[in-house]
Amino acid sequence: MEPQRKLQKLSWGIPASRMARNTFNPIRSIVDGMKLVPNPNKDMIVLSIGDPTVFGNLPIREEMEDALIHSIRSQKYNGYCPSVGYEKARAAVADYVTHHDAPVDFKDIILTSGCSGALDLCISCLANPGQNILIPRPGFSIYKTLAESLGIETKYYDLLPENSWEVDLVHLESLIDENTATIVVNNPSNPCGSVYSKGHLQDLLEIAERYKLPIIADEIYEHFVFSGSTYHSMASLSKNVPILSCSGLTKRFLVPGWRMGWIVINDKNNAFADEVRPGLVSLSQRILGPNTLVQAALEDILTKIPEHFYEETVSYVENNAKAFYKKMANIRGLNPIMPKGAMYMMIGIDMEKFPDFQDDVSFTQSMVTEQSVYCLPAKCFQYPNFFRVVLTTPENVLLEAGERIREFCEDHYRKSNTPEKNGLYQGYAYH
Amino acid sequence: MEPQRKLQKLSWGIPASRMARNTFNPIRSIVDGMKLVPNPNKDMIVLSIGDPTVFGNLPIREEMEDALIHSIRSQKYNGYCPSVGYEKARAAVADYVTHHDAPVDFKDIILTSGCSGALDLCISCLANPGQNILIPRPGFSIYKTLAESLGIETKYYDLLPENSWEVDLVHLESLIDENTATIVVNNPSNPCGSVYSKGHLQDLLEIAERYKLPIIADEIYEHFVFSGSTYHSMASLSKNVPILSCSGLTKRFLVPGWRMGWIVINDKNNAFADEVRPGLVSLSQRILGPNTLVQAALEDILTKIPEHFYEETVSYVENNAKAFYKKMANIRGLNPIMPKGAMYMMIGIDMEKFPDFQDDVSFTQSMVTEQSVYCLPAKCFQYPNFFRVVLTTPENVLLEAGERIREFCEDHYRKSNTPEKNGLYQGYAYH
Ligand SMILES: Cc1ncc(COP(=O)(O)O)c(C=O)c1O
Ligand SMILES: Cc1ncc(COP(=O)(O)O)c(C=O)c1O
Repeated sequence: MEPQRKLQKLSWGIPASRMARNTFNPIRSIVDGMKLVPNPNKDMIVLSIGDPTVFGNLPIREEMEDALIHSIRSQKYNGYCPSVGYEKARAAVADYVTHHDAPVDFKDIILTSGCSGALDLCISCLANPGQNILIPRPGFSIYKTLAESLGIETKYYDLLPENSWEVDLVHLESLIDENTATIVVNNPSNPCGSVYSKGHLQDLLEIAERYKLPIIADEIYEHFVFSGSTYHSMASLSKNVPILSCSGLTKRFLVPGWRMGWIVINDKNNAFADEVRPGLVSLSQRILGPNTLVQAALEDILTKIPEHFYEETVSYVENNAKAFYKKMANIRGLNPIMPKGAMYMMIGIDMEKFPDFQDDVSFTQSMVTEQSVYCLPAKCFQYPNFFRVVLTTPENVLLEAGERIREFCEDHYRKSNTPEKNGLYQGYAYH
Repeated sequence: MEPQRKLQKLSWGIPASRMARNTFNPIRSIVDGMKLVPNPNKDMIVLSIGDPTVFGNLPIREEMEDALIHSIRSQKYNGYCPSVGYEKARAAVADYVTHHDAPVDFKDIILTSGCSGALDLCISCLANPGQNILIPRPGFSIYKTLAESLGIETKYYDLLPENSWEVDLVHLESLIDENTATIVVNNPSNPCGSVYSKGHLQDLLEIAERYKLPIIADEIYEHFVFSGSTYHSMASLSKNVPILSCSGLTKRFLVPGWRMGWIVINDKNNAFADEVRPGLVSLSQRILGPNTLVQAALEDILTKIPEHFYEETVSYVENNAKAFYKKMANIRGLNPIMPKGAMYMMIGIDMEKFPDFQDDVSFTQSMVTEQSVYCLPAKCFQYPNFFRVVLTTPENVLLEAGERIREFCEDHYRKSNTPEKNGLYQGYAYH
């Protein structure tokens, strides 16, 4: 009787696991702490959500709907598939991503529930609790959310706004220690909209090579680049560095809700052969792959959509970027950084010119209160004194927002009494 | 220079994480070790896969296809949804599962990628690495796969074949220690096909209550019960024990590939309020919820399908169960246990009558080689000397398989020379 009694707790009240308590979306906790009360006299304009579908101005291609409906009506894809995906769907992805300098076939593809699911498998497969992974700052929050929930440490390497958000290579290298398991590179980037040159990507690969570190390449914005820039996948440039590239339908095909992502295993020297490949397969068995109907539609989706669909989306966003950049560049106290791709712009705030506000959070919060314009403070991306704007918005809405942001900044701008000194973010190459 | 050089490994060869190495599907490793070479003169009959769609004899309802196509054509559900699911879809599930003794609303529902995704969130939220969870033996392998990949220990409590696979309550209780975080109860059961009585479920709840342990109720086969049995959800019987019930569209709606599952939080005394509820929400942010199109179709799927559809599926399986049971009960050396629900039958093997075989694995392997009939050895469910048959097969195929199993057993049956003693599985109540 005795030992059992001890086990009997006196009251309910069930604790959550450390994993649950450590699973933490920084965006949510910052945003939940903000008082977002719009000005009742102005319609709310939301520029905070990285979802190209919210305004309804970027409809998907009918071929995609047809492909999915075809897989439904065939009644052949209601059952279980292998946890890494149907072979045919994996082959379709392989054909879509293969590159003469980085050829892949279906065996190199694992289908996942969104790019988040891909990142989850890659991070869980490469790093142990107690180890660390290197992630960009500013950067998308999911790397931290996924890693820390598993007890994996994250270390931020800096991106340099004055160099179009290139990686501070010296800083990156200084972070590497014997517990570093992998480097996450996000190109094109959320929230920066940066697109790295071949040379810069080669510099990154050179560091990875030197320390024999694999790379997780978050390439969910692949091909989403403006005129004048070229997209290079990490794998196409890598000679020896093994790369897990994560992508999916979410952004380029404008269907985040479909939750179709993938991992491409690029492994020219078989560094992943013994453990990582089988490890990824094992991990995929935890939730048994993404929706089979979407899988069955993948081949059509990836082959039947005409090139001009993508081009139109990108030039839509690029035009928005240019028009909005022009607007922002003319506002005293703001320092926009022209993106080269993806669907975001980061805008620096000369905080000393806006003494009404303590930081980018209170700045963006008051922009909601006064102007009903909602942008994400860059604190959500672990970066101070910037805010991020989503560029998939209809142009007139975006420009209306721009006008209100101008008004807001005019209302709060204060010339300092001390002689003009170099602002924290002055002198950038805004190209 | 020095410290850096030390970091530079000499060769590639990237290890997988402990999590990846500990993620382990016992079915896969047993099945991959079997030599499954069918008899070339007989068509292969596969009775091993718990997927009701494989034979094409159980088509889904057109309402389901229509609902999904409707959500595609509306173009309203391509975007992100909250990571716990659309409120409307959660409300539809709440309406579907609510019970006058366990009322729930949309706030109590979390939508997940299949029932596996639901179990993953529940196990990760309730247990820490180093703690243990109690799971059934024989039982579905995913509990072990999910838990051990996170470093959570699993302890098996025995089910008693002689009591229609009821839980050995004394054994269950003896396993509870101060590190026990939760009890997983699977009712109706895979692989047993058992359906527990109200009284037995109350006995289980009584133990959970005494030790203040929450229950994870895997109820993916809810309502899937044969005539003469009644399905009771754990939540409907619980007075104080907080319950996370996991289910989804997979089995009753015959669409495993759609990957739509859910957690129902039943928590009459707010034992989950402070930590577990927010913990589940946080964990859902790791991969951002299941496919939105299926979510948007949920309300129609859960309300528009006529009752007779379910009844027909169940009676189809029940007829198969009866016919197959009769066949098996007449085979010397086999001891089938009549299921009361779900879609499986467990069949005991008097191993001493089959000295040609070492265990259920070699027994079922030779059944493939000689008779081209493939059943899963119960070793896949951590149980010896049984095999499991899937009952969603077309009746003629199932009976042909039964005939071949009879022939196989006749070929290998050996009367022992010693006087007949009580066989290991004799004297069961086969009802
Ligand atoms: C850089 C980056 N990676 C990954 C994701 C997640 O993509 P998914 O919705 O396919 O999980 C996002 C979504 O915004 C993103 O911006
Ligand atoms: C008892 C049990 N739970 C959970 C599952 C997994 O269901 P899902 O395919 O919805 O993930 C299965 C599948 O066979 C099962 O038998």
